[in-house]
Amino acid sequence: MRAEFQADLAIVSELLVTMAEQARDAMNRATEALLAADQTDAEEVVHADLELDLGYQSVEEKVYDLLARQAPVASDLRLLVTALHTAADLERMGDLAVHVAQVCLRRLPSAAVPEELQPVIRDMAAVSDAMAAKVAESLRHSNASLAGELERDDDQVDQLNRQLFALMLGAAWRHGVAETIDGAMLARWYERYADHAVNAGRHVVYLVTGEVPPRSTVDAAP
Amino acid sequence: MRAEFQADLAIVSELLVTMAEQARDAMNRATEALLAADQTDAEEVVHADLELDLGYQSVEEKVYDLLARQAPVASDLRLLVTALHTAADLERMGDLAVHVAQVCLRRLPSAAVPEELQPVIRDMAAVSDAMAAKVAESLRHSNASLAGELERDDDQVDQLNRQLFALMLGAAWRHGVAETIDGAMLARWYERYADHAVNAGRHVVYLVTGEVPPRSTVDAAP
Repeated sequence: MRAEFQADLAIVSELLVTMAEQARDAMNRATEALLAADQTDAEEVVHADLELDLGYQSVEEKVYDLLARQAPVASDLRLLVTALHTAADLERMGDLAVHVAQVCLRRLPSAAVPEELQPVIRDMAAVSDAMAAKVAESLRHSNASLAGELERDDDQVDQLNRQLFALMLGAAWRHGVAETIDGAMLARWYERYADHAVNAGRHVVYLVTGEVPPRSTVDAAP
Repeated sequence: MRAEFQADLAIVSELLVTMAEQARDAMNRATEALLAADQTDAEEVVHADLELDLGYQSVEEKVYDLLARQAPVASDLRLLVTALHTAADLERMGDLAVHVAQVCLRRLPSAAVPEELQPVIRDMAAVSDAMAAKVAESLRHSNASLAGELERDDDQVDQLNRQLFALMLGAAWRHGVAETIDGAMLARWYERYADHAVNAGRHVVYLVTGEVPPRSTVDAAP
């Protein structure tokens, strides 16, 4: 029974790795589409989101199937619920990539991001990508210490966030309301993407070590 | 065993009703603080959020305690996981009220919301409040049809959201970058609050009827 449970859990873990890679790919392509005003790429991000939605459903089905067949003990149940939470975070990261792609689509044929914001958006995307990669790697290799690094990475995203708002609030900002709204929303999408990566990392720490890391109470609002 | 399980589930449900009332109260007070530039009220919303965090923990503890003692069957497990999801939505609604209160605090002693946006913010807050009230009522009376109304209510919030953006993008908008960013973020906090109310409502439908309503894939981004 126990060996079978472990084998089933490994399948769930595989599904989560795939979801993490998809969430990572989605934000990378959304960022490229955004900065290059590329309609095809942006539309593909929107369509590909279905995969992550189906991934969530697969994890859910597998978990409930396991529950029905195996009547696992309490600590194993907690693992399964944690896997569900992780899947929900990864699915949400995909949604946030879709939001970024939608900003791109809404401003076509123009580029949504004014030149002076491009470097900070690129930096936020790079840190977010590294974070999603750590989630995937920590899941793949049951690596809790890698997952534990995510909190610090998130501080970087928060700092870049403040930098982006400072640029828009500075005297040199000459853009209109639409660009300002887009800038604020984009900052938010990357920040939430990183927050969900942190959450996913916390879940991985639990999945690997059985210890519950403290939960932050509120995300940082801009 | 079954009767004991039902009694335990009723306790979880009570905890969720309390959380729903707290989430409702939080957004109401945050809105009042925002529109009246009232520091005391805004700070109280921030402090009171601890109650919702503790509420989530209580639901979690109760659920895991139940799992350990009762070894429930698969369908009951699904109920328990659904209760956890509901608690997570309600806790998040509290976070969003905190974000609204923080916008108020950041602009003090000025009011954060320009006069021409006040009516639409008030309308969004009113619909959001009615939605949170429905979540609480549907939980309290196991009323699935009330919970089922939430999708339509959410359309109203989305419409008000578009209205708010139209005001800021219109020719008459004479405010600066800070007001524009605040307006965009506030629209987002109310919209997400309503989205989580819809999610919570879906969970209530499942808790009451055992039927899973279809899950929407992505929230509406502005």
